[in-house]
Amino acid sequence: MSEIQSTDGSRTYTLAQLAIYVGGQLRGPGDAVVRGIAAPALARPDQVCFIADKRHVAALEITEAAAAIVDEQLAAKTDRSVLICASPYLAYARASQLFDRTPVASGIHPTAVVHPEARIAEGVSLGANSVIEKDAVLGAGVAVGAGTVVGQRSRVGENSRLYANVTLYHDVTIGADCTIHSGAVLGADGFGFAPDQGRWERIAQNGGVVLGDAVSVGANTTIDRGAIGDTVIEDGVIIDNLCQIAHNVRIGRHSALAGTCGIAGSAIIGAHCTLAGGAGMVGHIELADGCHIGARTVVTKSISKKGSWSAGTPMMPSREWRRAAVRFTQLDSLAQRIAELEKKLGK
Amino acid sequence: MSEIQSTDGSRTYTLAQLAIYVGGQLRGPGDAVVRGIAAPALARPDQVCFIADKRHVAALEITEAAAAIVDEQLAAKTDRSVLICASPYLAYARASQLFDRTPVASGIHPTAVVHPEARIAEGVSLGANSVIEKDAVLGAGVAVGAGTVVGQRSRVGENSRLYANVTLYHDVTIGADCTIHSGAVLGADGFGFAPDQGRWERIAQNGGVVLGDAVSVGANTTIDRGAIGDTVIEDGVIIDNLCQIAHNVRIGRHSALAGTCGIAGSAIIGAHCTLAGGAGMVGHIELADGCHIGARTVVTKSISKKGSWSAGTPMMPSREWRRAAVRFTQLDSLAQRIAELEKKLGK
Amino acid sequence: MSEIQSTDGSRTYTLAQLAIYVGGQLRGPGDAVVRGIAAPALARPDQVCFIADKRHVAALEITEAAAAIVDEQLAAKTDRSVLICASPYLAYARASQLFDRTPVASGIHPTAVVHPEARIAEGVSLGANSVIEKDAVLGAGVAVGAGTVVGQRSRVGENSRLYANVTLYHDVTIGADCTIHSGAVLGADGFGFAPDQGRWERIAQNGGVVLGDAVSVGANTTIDRGAIGDTVIEDGVIIDNLCQIAHNVRIGRHSALAGTCGIAGSAIIGAHCTLAGGAGMVGHIELADGCHIGARTVVTKSISKKGSWSAGTPMMPSREWRRAAVRFTQLDSLAQRIAELEKKLGK
Repeated sequence: MSEIQSTDGSRTYTLAQLAIYVGGQLRGPGDAVVRGIAAPALARPDQVCFIADKRHVAALEITEAAAAIVDEQLAAKTDRSVLICASPYLAYARASQLFDRTPVASGIHPTAVVHPEARIAEGVSLGANSVIEKDAVLGAGVAVGAGTVVGQRSRVGENSRLYANVTLYHDVTIGADCTIHSGAVLGADGFGFAPDQGRWERIAQNGGVVLGDAVSVGANTTIDRGAIGDTVIEDGVIIDNLCQIAHNVRIGRHSALAGTCGIAGSAIIGAHCTLAGGAGMVGHIELADGCHIGARTVVTKSISKKGSWSAGTPMMPSREWRRAAVRFTQLDSLAQRIAELEKKLGK
Repeated sequence: MSEIQSTDGSRTYTLAQLAIYVGGQLRGPGDAVVRGIAAPALARPDQVCFIADKRHVAALEITEAAAAIVDEQLAAKTDRSVLICASPYLAYARASQLFDRTPVASGIHPTAVVHPEARIAEGVSLGANSVIEKDAVLGAGVAVGAGTVVGQRSRVGENSRLYANVTLYHDVTIGADCTIHSGAVLGADGFGFAPDQGRWERIAQNGGVVLGDAVSVGANTTIDRGAIGDTVIEDGVIIDNLCQIAHNVRIGRHSALAGTCGIAGSAIIGAHCTLAGGAGMVGHIELADGCHIGARTVVTKSISKKGSWSAGTPMMPSREWRRAAVRFTQLDSLAQRIAELEKKLGK
Repeated sequence: MSEIQSTDGSRTYTLAQLAIYVGGQLRGPGDAVVRGIAAPALARPDQVCFIADKRHVAALEITEAAAAIVDEQLAAKTDRSVLICASPYLAYARASQLFDRTPVASGIHPTAVVHPEARIAEGVSLGANSVIEKDAVLGAGVAVGAGTVVGQRSRVGENSRLYANVTLYHDVTIGADCTIHSGAVLGADGFGFAPDQGRWERIAQNGGVVLGDAVSVGANTTIDRGAIGDTVIEDGVIIDNLCQIAHNVRIGRHSALAGTCGIAGSAIIGAHCTLAGGAGMVGHIELADGCHIGARTVVTKSISKKGSWSAGTPMMPSREWRRAAVRFTQLDSLAQRIAELEKKLGK
């Protein structure tokens, strides 16, 4: 796709190019040049905006954007320049990639440390001070950031990108087109210890970690290696920052975990599940495909069919909350007192 | 300030020097030498202590400290050597800095990797194996720890310190006098994906991260880059370890977030707020200036005026808790039964 | 112990060797060769399995394992080949170590950066780009992973292992036989600030971090240095990933913290405690020896004797949960209405 890249990494496209790329229908000047995407109220005449929510129809009239990405219904309500798409939000996602300023990695930095028995395919880029250990295998087009360590016998599939300061232990397998953000640690020991007369005897974690294709792992997230057998993250799973994925967990295709989730050992998450921020699961249970778990909710038993689950108490002014919290501790006796009253009243 | 530094990094001052530095009034021997600060009960005669809480008045008599940092009220209750300050706790903070043993960074280590197009001001120190990428800009007196990576076009203001193994992605801007602790990751992609027929289409995160002056970021904390526009942390904000700050969050001046807080995308925190450990916010809501959020409380809707908010249930012996937890699930029917009873009794 | 190590890092033993190593009694062919451990249903004839739970007796008959590690009771129920141990789970832990595929670290990589005034004992291994700062001391047999930084005056005891990309600040002391996983940060500043007219004045954190022997620290866990005096983790403590241990915390011998726990400043945890995933403690309180804290439970006051404590509400279908959550906010008035009813009924 022809484009102009400026010295600061920004790119420009015409509206016509944009329409082709996002798969939309342009109603407006195809030769108008756009340099980015902005919120409707802030967009300048060389930017586009998108409106995914019909309630925001008023924004159509105030925005100065070169074009607004909207669906047919919204397009019918205005005469302004629009880019009509079945899903404006998805079209925005595609358009955003055109303006991605993430530096393209290229070349092998002279300070990269590559073990002679590692295998590096063509087109691999290695950042400064990256370390590729013995028998590691990097597929074509893999990008490894500065300071990142790829442990022995670990494998990274084609076109996957590991940002700076990532750590892969030994025997970690990553598919193609994955993104691993900085500080993520894949393959550390699962938390397995057997009690031995008041002490803890370490259980060697002899499994690995296996990621499918197109998996995204957030910054400082940890995915432990399996004790027996592997920890498995299937194709298309997206995991946000600071999540803890314990040993032998399995996460099904295209599931999404928001920030600070914690999944205990051997838990299984089905496909197309979503876990909101700070959600968790206790170990050795299973979540069916298509489950949605609310923020900070801990899943404590297996769920066998899709649905939406929540836990917790709402925020309250602290003074009122203190009273409610005390009452919570009295709940069982309160319930018994209700039963007493019902008995007296001859229910 | 004249001082004597010993070989192990410790420093000594006279009580008179200390009084000037913390802005207090000394009642005691100005030439007494002190080598540090300790708790009242543990302080040796060459240390000072502080008593910020009037209830701890008894400690005044038992401590062997060279002087006790106290306010006027406490000073009036003793004949011992004291350093009288309006706020003993603040005076302790200042005094503590005199005894700081943090190694002073200096010089550019020969293994530091600096791109020829990076700009490094005078007095910058770069630790071993640090990496400064293309077009990065480091202001005068900036200290970069070992293994730390500063991404393309990122800028660090004067006298800011990045400890070891920090990662700044591209287009991250840090003000002057900031402190970024090890393992922190600034500028990783926000967690933005659009659903596309059961798959997730990545939304490029084209904004950056902007930190004001005198911001402190804890170890292994993550601050994501914005999707459109920047994630912004204003002057004087302090953030503890392992916090997750999502894309396009804005945190107002001098707010404080304790460890393991999680703030979802586009949430706005006002100035002078405090969030206790593990607190959180859902996305796209706003917290007014001066709000205080209790430990593990999730803010689920905007709060328009200052106040204190809490959530959660108190810890209980597990056996009792199990009963209360079951009753929680019955709360709605319990409430209905109360209404029934009231109706029967003709309320 | 004689063994055969194959080129991919796997090892083989005879059943007789295994029996001696785990301290069990073999009933079966001593010369059978085993190459690993697997779950009963998946074990091949060259693997062993273990059955720790008597309810899984049926697995004894279906497994193809060379031998099943069981206790006497289970052994009495089968004629198959078994390895009889007092604690099958502990025996499994020991056996697992025989098959550990973690690469053995050896040698000092030429890219390791060692300050001339650091002291490195015999048998120390240093990974690529590791950094050992001034006056650091590494005991015999210490293994330091790639990219790991050991700060000034920090000390690591014999045979301890720091994996890749660990950060130790200055004045951190680690005992013998410890394991520190990647991304862990020990010795960052505790979160100490004094309010000063709406700003935060930093309190220098002049203590250190002290770990006893045989301590295990999980990936991306943070343990802050003390403000005055040290943060102390006693012998045999095991800490999982992404835990936050604040300044001046003390954790007693052989206690265990599962993933994402958060312990606030100056909290004291006794010996032999267990904290489940995401548990926490507020600051300045104390947990007696032998306490067990449930998942996500925050300990809000001192506990003086051993016991089990929990908090939180159970997960519910979101629609039902919303009603219960609203009722929680009404709890105090519901309780008052019950009292009213009781009064009317002349209780």
